[in-house]
Amino acid sequence: MGYSIKSRIWIERKGETLLGEGRVSLLKAVGEHGSISAAAKSLNMSYKKAWSLLDAVNARAKHPVITSNIGGAGGGGAQLTDYGMQLIETFDQINQNCWKFLDKEIKNSNL
Amino acid sequence: MGYSIKSRIWIERKGETLLGEGRVSLLKAVGEHGSISAAAKSLNMSYKKAWSLLDAVNARAKHPVITSNIGGAGGGGAQLTDYGMQLIETFDQINQNCWKFLDKEIKNSNL
Repeated sequence: MGYSIKSRIWIERKGETLLGEGRVSLLKAVGEHGSISAAAKSLNMSYKKAWSLLDAVNARAKHPVITSNIGGAGGGGAQLTDYGMQLIETFDQINQNCWKFLDKEIKNSNL
Repeated sequence: MGYSIKSRIWIERKGETLLGEGRVSLLKAVGEHGSISAAAKSLNMSYKKAWSLLDAVNARAKHPVITSNIGGAGGGGAQLTDYGMQLIETFDQINQNCWKFLDKEIKNSNL
């Protein structure tokens, strides 16, 4: 039985983590649920933690990824921006491309 | 300022981790120092932990990666096998190829 190769990727900007699998899941949950508090709940994450992660992504990305009540005490409605959706799609696409690339690499090795 | 993309890879066999960056460092240290105890010391790792990791790699790889006194109480001499060296080189090569691939992917994205 052969070897398989796995990977985990993340995007950085200015030396800091912008986006990895965890934050992508959180952004997707915001898109689904339409609010930070509901997104946090769906991932068994505290509102504070979710808010802090989303605030970091929003601050580090070239353009905002979610809009509206980020930071609002009530955790009201929140929406992914078009740029936020593009960021998620690109991350997922590169991740899948990377898996395919690594599959080929390990198959072409002599191990 | 743009985005950069980072990755971490590991090799699995039969659903279990065979080799990641930590184990590669340990194997390289064994190659340099010629003993498990010296390798463990150089990485601030306990002998027991190093032995256990190397035992797992040896058991899961298609061929042994280190020879001799693995499991010996004295932690005597240990050597990388040719296959062990090939495994390390291939891992490092695929890792570098992956970084280059991801650099291209992020540059070609519209983010």
